[in-house]
Amino acid sequence: MIVDVATRAYNHTFKVDPIVRTLLDTDFYKLLMQQMSHTLHRDLKVTFQLINRAHDLPLAKIIDRRDLEEQLDHARSLRFQKNEIIWLAGNTFYGTKQIFRPDFIAWLEDFRLPDYELRVVEDQFELRFSGTWAEATAWEIPALAIMSELKARAVLKTMSRFEIDVLYARAKAKLWAKIERLRKLEAEATLRVGDFGTRRRHGFLWQRWCIEAMMEGIGDSFTGTSNVKHAMDLGLEALGTNAHELPMVYAALAPDDAALREAPYEVLRDWASFYSGNLRIILPDAFGTTEFLERAPEEFADWTGLRPDSKEPVEAVEEYITWLKARGRDPLGKVAILSDGMDIDSIEHCVRYFRGKIGSVPIGWGTHLTNDFRGCIPNGDETLLRATSLVCKVIEAGGRPAVKLSDNPTKATGPQSEIDRYRRVFGTRGMVKQEVLV
Amino acid sequence: MIVDVATRAYNHTFKVDPIVRTLLDTDFYKLLMQQMSHTLHRDLKVTFQLINRAHDLPLAKIIDRRDLEEQLDHARSLRFQKNEIIWLAGNTFYGTKQIFRPDFIAWLEDFRLPDYELRVVEDQFELRFSGTWAEATAWEIPALAIMSELKARAVLKTMSRFEIDVLYARAKAKLWAKIERLRKLEAEATLRVGDFGTRRRHGFLWQRWCIEAMMEGIGDSFTGTSNVKHAMDLGLEALGTNAHELPMVYAALAPDDAALREAPYEVLRDWASFYSGNLRIILPDAFGTTEFLERAPEEFADWTGLRPDSKEPVEAVEEYITWLKARGRDPLGKVAILSDGMDIDSIEHCVRYFRGKIGSVPIGWGTHLTNDFRGCIPNGDETLLRATSLVCKVIEAGGRPAVKLSDNPTKATGPQSEIDRYRRVFGTRGMVKQEVLV
Repeated sequence: MIVDVATRAYNHTFKVDPIVRTLLDTDFYKLLMQQMSHTLHRDLKVTFQLINRAHDLPLAKIIDRRDLEEQLDHARSLRFQKNEIIWLAGNTFYGTKQIFRPDFIAWLEDFRLPDYELRVVEDQFELRFSGTWAEATAWEIPALAIMSELKARAVLKTMSRFEIDVLYARAKAKLWAKIERLRKLEAEATLRVGDFGTRRRHGFLWQRWCIEAMMEGIGDSFTGTSNVKHAMDLGLEALGTNAHELPMVYAALAPDDAALREAPYEVLRDWASFYSGNLRIILPDAFGTTEFLERAPEEFADWTGLRPDSKEPVEAVEEYITWLKARGRDPLGKVAILSDGMDIDSIEHCVRYFRGKIGSVPIGWGTHLTNDFRGCIPNGDETLLRATSLVCKVIEAGGRPAVKLSDNPTKATGPQSEIDRYRRVFGTRGMVKQEVLV
Repeated sequence: MIVDVATRAYNHTFKVDPIVRTLLDTDFYKLLMQQMSHTLHRDLKVTFQLINRAHDLPLAKIIDRRDLEEQLDHARSLRFQKNEIIWLAGNTFYGTKQIFRPDFIAWLEDFRLPDYELRVVEDQFELRFSGTWAEATAWEIPALAIMSELKARAVLKTMSRFEIDVLYARAKAKLWAKIERLRKLEAEATLRVGDFGTRRRHGFLWQRWCIEAMMEGIGDSFTGTSNVKHAMDLGLEALGTNAHELPMVYAALAPDDAALREAPYEVLRDWASFYSGNLRIILPDAFGTTEFLERAPEEFADWTGLRPDSKEPVEAVEEYITWLKARGRDPLGKVAILSDGMDIDSIEHCVRYFRGKIGSVPIGWGTHLTNDFRGCIPNGDETLLRATSLVCKVIEAGGRPAVKLSDNPTKATGPQSEIDRYRRVFGTRGMVKQEVLV
């Protein structure tokens, strides 16, 4: 047995074990949105805030504040590397060459994450990021991934080497059992599954293992990953479209109720001035899917597809299909991306259910792909290893509060008076309370 | 990421990856038996033969003959190391200091495995070892372990790095699930389980992992290992008593039928001149348990216990209990070691069943501890990874054929005419045909 002394010494003495090692370790949709906000709203100041929706989980007691600061500081020290910039500029994304404009690429070259504000309030971290929209938004994924992995590390620290060995063995066996079900599924229906699991992942290396497992297991049915770094390293498609921050910021900036009502469509028109084809995906639920569709101008029926989020997926996609048919569009030419808390059961159900009903239902498989350790801890309490409902949302834009209603009132965010106003302006039809799992 | 170039280069260029790296990588009972045969039958020539009881598995097609020879030659190049000899001489085994006499220790110092004869007959290896009894017997465990691991390696060679990763993850998860059942079992009954899995193990390192899993999982309920090397390295008790070769050789040497009938008792008397206490364990089934017990002289009711082998364990131990009671001995002061093809279901069943009926039922957990990969291969055929019914048995002693009847006629070995003669001499009551799994 040859022991590599240098490696061993390094393993026992290094100072920081960084969670985020490159600015590319983020979700692809951030870059798409940053290009738009950088170009159209260069000076707009916004604030993002990280929120733990699981109030019973005292994160500030589990994670050492200094460890968190160390990781956040390390992320702030990062710049895009030369080879990363070249890849972003030269690679083809969603079939489009040079999707990022030279002006945006030049901005990325100098980019660094803006400062953060950290406070501890009632055993929870209050973590805020302010800056221009394109700057502050860049914190979402690294901040979530850091918090998620620090929580996992806090649990691993209490375990013996052997227990950790069993833990990962079980988690691997568990994922592979899901993949075997996907292999059966792809034999009976078109399957398209991508990794959307960066933000609430167990850890960077574990996410990579999960991606490699999917590549090995389902081959071409695996469509890629939302994680830009993994996409580059593994030669995969980088996946992602747009997020709630777009309509939320546009809504916050609306000068009156009439403008507010138009904001969700306004933002999509701006989006369409940047992106086409499979990037023209509607995220309809920021202020309620039912009302959004009902009031949507005809042009949006020509968009490629829909990504329902906070509504039960079968119901949301059925609603979309009905809406398309009423506007004379063939659902078989459309796409519905399912990415809200999907796991193997719901994947099987939805893929089977929508066969022949809509063009395709690509799955964005997130937390239950990259952080499913339920039942894997050898001894004792597994609560802390569970994925947590952490989110990082825009809370302010141009000095005005940002609001989200969602199809699930439990997920509404913003000051109550503004929530009430938004509900008045948009209506509340089609909203249903549901428990939030991840 | 730091890559240790030397290790990487070594991993890609080394010539032999030895399966047996030390003569201590054998079962402890071999040393006990060798001491007896070396002392009492120093010049007796015997032949052992490795037999694949699964005739439908063409081992000579699966394993490259040169790989086998390379491994056997490597094993022949081994000598006991100084520190190993010192440990054997200085360690306490079964509560006895200096269980190995100076004369035997001196013999071990110069010991090397005798030559082997290898032929290929109808896609099977015919592998024979001849020498003095103490010499030839030493091949049993290394030869079996080499064949077993070469078979496993032949399968691993067809797998991708990723599939191998999933394979071991699943095997670890599978063993840990069994260990969790043992943890529940030890809460309701006295549990004593040891590793008896050297001969049909998946591999040396995998056996070590299984042992460490047991140490971690059930602590003091794990009694040790039959593997002398692992026992030394991990500070565990070395376990084992005696094997069928003892009565088989004594029987072969018997000059007539009357002496033959006495041989099974004769050999135990010689054993008792070397070993006491928990080493006085009767292995009753070489020529049939029922007949053995019926004819057994009174003195054997004072022995510590019984190790049934080829008979269904509950039936065999019930027979022993009835026999003890008929001789006025309290079964609660006795031990019945169960080591024939045990797995978690039969362990649970037997431990629960015999609670309060006999002193203890220590489990010798073999193949299903160290080589259970059923259901673990990610893609494709798992037949080849299944543990095989390989045995290495004495076939000749002093120029006369060696015979075993066993309680299961399927396991009988020896020339048919001698089997017929033994059946006439010993009788066949209590024998039941059963399928042989491992």
